Amino acid sequence: MNSRKPSDIGIVGLGVMGENLALNLHRNGFAVSGYDLEEPKRASFADRTGAVAPRSLQELVNGLRIPRVLLLMVPAGAAVDTVIAELRPLLAAGDVVIDGGNTRFTDTQRRMTELTGSGILYVGAGVSGGEEGALKGPSIMPGGDADAWPRIKPILQAIAAKAEDGQPCCDWIGPGASGHYVKMVHNGIEYADMQTICEAYFLMQQLLEMQPREMSEVFAGWNRGELSSYLVGITADILSRVDPETGKPLVDVIVDTAEQKGTGKWASQAALDLGVTAPTIADAVFARTVSAVRAERAVASEVLAGPQPAFGGDPDAFVEKVRRALLAAKICAYAQGFQLLAAADKEYGWDLPFGTIAGLWRAGCIIRASLLEDIRRAYARDRQLANLLVDGEFVRVMGESHQALREVVAVAAQNGVAVPAFMSALAYYDSYRSRRLPANLLQAQRDYFGAHTYQRLDRAGKFHTRWTAG
Amino acid sequence: MNSRKPSDIGIVGLGVMGENLALNLHRNGFAVSGYDLEEPKRASFADRTGAVAPRSLQELVNGLRIPRVLLLMVPAGAAVDTVIAELRPLLAAGDVVIDGGNTRFTDTQRRMTELTGSGILYVGAGVSGGEEGALKGPSIMPGGDADAWPRIKPILQAIAAKAEDGQPCCDWIGPGASGHYVKMVHNGIEYADMQTICEAYFLMQQLLEMQPREMSEVFAGWNRGELSSYLVGITADILSRVDPETGKPLVDVIVDTAEQKGTGKWASQAALDLGVTAPTIADAVFARTVSAVRAERAVASEVLAGPQPAFGGDPDAFVEKVRRALLAAKICAYAQGFQLLAAADKEYGWDLPFGTIAGLWRAGCIIRASLLEDIRRAYARDRQLANLLVDGEFVRVMGESHQALREVVAVAAQNGVAVPAFMSALAYYDSYRSRRLPANLLQAQRDYFGAHTYQRLDRAGKFHTRWTAG
Repeated sequence: MNSRKPSDIGIVGLGVMGENLALNLHRNGFAVSGYDLEEPKRASFADRTGAVAPRSLQELVNGLRIPRVLLLMVPAGAAVDTVIAELRPLLAAGDVVIDGGNTRFTDTQRRMTELTGSGILYVGAGVSGGEEGALKGPSIMPGGDADAWPRIKPILQAIAAKAEDGQPCCDWIGPGASGHYVKMVHNGIEYADMQTICEAYFLMQQLLEMQPREMSEVFAGWNRGELSSYLVGITADILSRVDPETGKPLVDVIVDTAEQKGTGKWASQAALDLGVTAPTIADAVFARTVSAVRAERAVASEVLAGPQPAFGGDPDAFVEKVRRALLAAKICAYAQGFQLLAAADKEYGWDLPFGTIAGLWRAGCIIRASLLEDIRRAYARDRQLANLLVDGEFVRVMGESHQALREVVAVAAQNGVAVPAFMSALAYYDSYRSRRLPANLLQAQRDYFGAHTYQRLDRAGKFHTRWTAG
Repeated sequence: MNSRKPSDIGIVGLGVMGENLALNLHRNGFAVSGYDLEEPKRASFADRTGAVAPRSLQELVNGLRIPRVLLLMVPAGAAVDTVIAELRPLLAAGDVVIDGGNTRFTDTQRRMTELTGSGILYVGAGVSGGEEGALKGPSIMPGGDADAWPRIKPILQAIAAKAEDGQPCCDWIGPGASGHYVKMVHNGIEYADMQTICEAYFLMQQLLEMQPREMSEVFAGWNRGELSSYLVGITADILSRVDPETGKPLVDVIVDTAEQKGTGKWASQAALDLGVTAPTIADAVFARTVSAVRAERAVASEVLAGPQPAFGGDPDAFVEKVRRALLAAKICAYAQGFQLLAAADKEYGWDLPFGTIAGLWRAGCIIRASLLEDIRRAYARDRQLANLLVDGEFVRVMGESHQALREVVAVAAQNGVAVPAFMSALAYYDSYRSRRLPANLLQAQRDYFGAHTYQRLDRAGKFHTRWTAG
């Protein structure tokens, strides 16, 4: 045991994320210590952050101020269970364990159940912003044992990003696994955001034959308006890059195969489980899976018929339509994400603060965008909002942009340019605003072959027709 | 114990499905007995089928020829576990238990593991065709303990539907839960089939203002051509029906809210789990969930802007385009379903007979269609087919129909008619035949904020750019 001042927080898992969070904590005046199984990571951590990096979890725990706060930054999955099992005998009632990884919410639910009666306060915290966010200020979504919040609030809010109005991008989400659930939905929206941006790029490339540098300027311009966001900004940046080896635009030498780590998939599966309509999030996942079968696509491109892209209109006018289409699709994707949150809120009884959640996505995280302030206001006006699309402000914006989305989808369809997320966003919008859908026929089919019954428009009850009888 | 001839098969669960299967078995010369917890169901069963319906599982088991064959037709879920637990001490090694319900494949996997060492031969059998199919001949997809097959083959193939070439629509699928998996995929395709038919109906209704009787004739006509199928046939039938109470077309008094029992959802989630691109199946599920929020849609229809549907072209030509679009979308949905089967085959090592599976969907089941014979031939020609779309015959059909799908999608987009499945089918086709997709930009974004690395087109390896450095 050394006699130095006890640390305010101990970080377990000293990858770049853990290191960067430590630097952030240190910059904000907190005493940090860290532990990793691997000695080189402990050495690098101590070297880069100046913090203590003891050789065992026991020493790490001994050096913490009581009640202790531990932040796990280990890979989601079995590693979290291992660390918890090792920590459990070292901790006392009132100590706080925060899992800051991209953990599947059902794992967090299970771990909280397993820790019941231990007195350990468990927090599942979504952390978004990547390595840079961890260093400069991430968006943090903590949920779990509410008794932990007073203890960790000053720490997490200090290191979190600050929105334009000065509010920290960290607030208490709710009980149970709500923090990791909200992070999962954040990532689902992120998938859709990235895919719709890619489709805007694809349309300009395929139909206007624009070069990356030109498109970089377009995205930079968009980033100064309604579409202002981190992802549009980095897209402008990416498209401006030249590959030092070939002199070509860097994006043109990158293989068109997108990988995934599962959070978008989980969000889509959760939407399916709760009966939430989230096609644009799911289509963004499917866009990645079809990108992955690159060799198959090469073969298919030789044999499957399609039109030769040919665009006859005014390029500038088309670029503006793509901008509006992107905005409309983005709003539809956010609407789907918030519907998923609303359904989870009802399912799990979390009493989620929707406006606050939109607020803490305004800075620090990957989906940060000026649009989030509008969403925050919409839910501040009405927490019970049936759907983001019917908030007055979004009714107005969609009124100005749905026509562009229609035209862009029509042009893409006729020219053979694949825009799955744009299409599903439009189908979502048109389905949601349809007083009447063709599901009456579908329910009749179900009654026909499966006797599943149907309801009538003119009176209550369940009805069955003996379709095949005479 | 009575002294009557032992039964060839005992049915547990005497709902309409169980009763109808018993009648089918009886008609084919098998001695049947049945058991249900509820006395009235036993009485109805004995009355309607003339078969024995003893008062206990023990008696049922005692009256069966050895090795025994039991067919469970109880609701999927906990009831299956209960029945298995009660049966287990009554059975001997070599006895066969078939679960003929719509069981989630993971439950079948678990039950097979739990029965390991018991000597009981467990079979998970998908049964499709609804109540009528059970009576007249369903499509049956059995998988599990292969030792059971010789014992149950003569029974199941006798009662199964027969394809036009006389082949029974029942054959061995493979080990493990492959039978229930194949049934799940069947149902995923069924969801897409039903939704695309509904979209065709919706387009004719919204854009051409056609009446149900006129549309009935259109579907009846389609049912005589390439689209010939059970679902198109019953659609023609449904649309011709007049509500006896109001004198209106029956479909017009049915509420446009489609329910679901979960198999389409499972198929979509399985596709997401295995990284299979199956957007049209997922969109068919989402079309049901958005139909379910009918009150919300009524409100949204008052405030959200959209075009007034207006069609200016030749109605007959448009109907023909819708027909071709439906065919193209259907093929894309089947392609997705078979890709899901192929991925499961690889994941679980089942060695699935794709051609046989298509063959046993040719009659008896809900998705039976003339198209299935073409699919059977495609996989008979090449079991390793990368995708149904690149089989020569389907290249040809898609070549004739993709343009109609494009035009229909474009018209729907411009007129505000929601056609999510048509759109996702087109996006699937265009994505799959794209040599280059915009996923290069997406992967660059991932590398930018998460250091996830990317591949280069010009050489092997993983690369990372320090995007924010200078």
